[in-house]
Amino acid sequence: MKSVVVFSGGIDSTTLLFKLKNEGHEIYTITFSYGQKHSRELESAKKIASILKFDHKIVDISSLQSLLDSALTNPNIAIPKVPVGAQFYETLKTTVVPNRNAIFLSIAAGYAQSIGANNVFYAAHYSDRGIYPDCRQEFIEAFEKMSRISLENNSLSVQSPFVNMNKSDIVRLGSELGIPYELTWSCYSGDTKHCGTCSACRERKRAFFEAGIKDPTVYRE
Amino acid sequence: MKSVVVFSGGIDSTTLLFKLKNEGHEIYTITFSYGQKHSRELESAKKIASILKFDHKIVDISSLQSLLDSALTNPNIAIPKVPVGAQFYETLKTTVVPNRNAIFLSIAAGYAQSIGANNVFYAAHYSDRGIYPDCRQEFIEAFEKMSRISLENNSLSVQSPFVNMNKSDIVRLGSELGIPYELTWSCYSGDTKHCGTCSACRERKRAFFEAGIKDPTVYRE
Repeated sequence: MKSVVVFSGGIDSTTLLFKLKNEGHEIYTITFSYGQKHSRELESAKKIASILKFDHKIVDISSLQSLLDSALTNPNIAIPKVPVGAQFYETLKTTVVPNRNAIFLSIAAGYAQSIGANNVFYAAHYSDRGIYPDCRQEFIEAFEKMSRISLENNSLSVQSPFVNMNKSDIVRLGSELGIPYELTWSCYSGDTKHCGTCSACRERKRAFFEAGIKDPTVYRE
Repeated sequence: MKSVVVFSGGIDSTTLLFKLKNEGHEIYTITFSYGQKHSRELESAKKIASILKFDHKIVDISSLQSLLDSALTNPNIAIPKVPVGAQFYETLKTTVVPNRNAIFLSIAAGYAQSIGANNVFYAAHYSDRGIYPDCRQEFIEAFEKMSRISLENNSLSVQSPFVNMNKSDIVRLGSELGIPYELTWSCYSGDTKHCGTCSACRERKRAFFEAGIKDPTVYRE
């Protein structure tokens, strides 16, 4: 089954790749350089795709940096630091990149159509649903419907198999699959080492902690 | 009313801009460089936007050229020449760029959200509906629904005011608005002069003919 997978080099999409590979998919991965401060994730994506011998495209859409306002792309908005155990809903909202998944998936679906693939995957999960509307089941369904019309292809399937799983469930699954998580990247800060205090690092730490699995990441703090 | 308008520099989106300007919209135009052979249209867009003094962004997503298979982007697929009066449905299919409007509109909607605009416009019209599924009313509705979820913004409106108008109706309207159509660009061929024989040139010629308005275009053939 020919499948295009949106792949960031983080824990979730890396686990998705291993899972789909195990299930026998013929995988085409696509990674976006969209002007994110944490472009370090592109290196992780490249390395992991090369180890798994996947067809891998890194797509440069960094011109979007000046259009999409977010702490992840705008040099004038700081990446929020998150205190341990804080309720951080409001702070995290600055990390939303408006329409990011709609943009990524629209390109992925156009690419899928071009190579004769009927499946598009991405790795939204349950822990993200509060902040990120494009990680919710209703978004996925509306997106699939729109794409089927846009591509005149009722066989097109858009899926996020982790949409009802927490990040700790994903780490547990990935651990069983033997994923080298030390190669993955989460941190938003733009450093070359995981900062340990941004929301992505907090979530990463928590996922390993809750899963009861040793976190192989080296954090600055 | 703050409005983002997808603008190619062709007849349809230029007419849309003049119409919206007349109606008092505060307009932000966005033009995409997506690896199209007819990048000549970017010059037209630039010139027209500067004459109208619109805020204008040209967004470079030319890396998509290698992902989206179409005669408009793939150097190995010739732009079809269309005989006069031919039924050219099958030939024209090679000019579909898969998911083009979904990609453009996803970016435009993310940009709209970033600048606090609730309106996204593009200039799909009735003559395009046969070949291009992303120019149909059902696509527009599905796209708007998806975007409202993706951006958590039920006030977002995605519209194509010409969706029930033929290209000749558009030319008639634009002529009343005094549009300098000689500045617009339609041709797909990649030449610096309108070729006169590609589908876009045929449609352009036909629109002026049917509207009974003198065509100001200089064609090679």
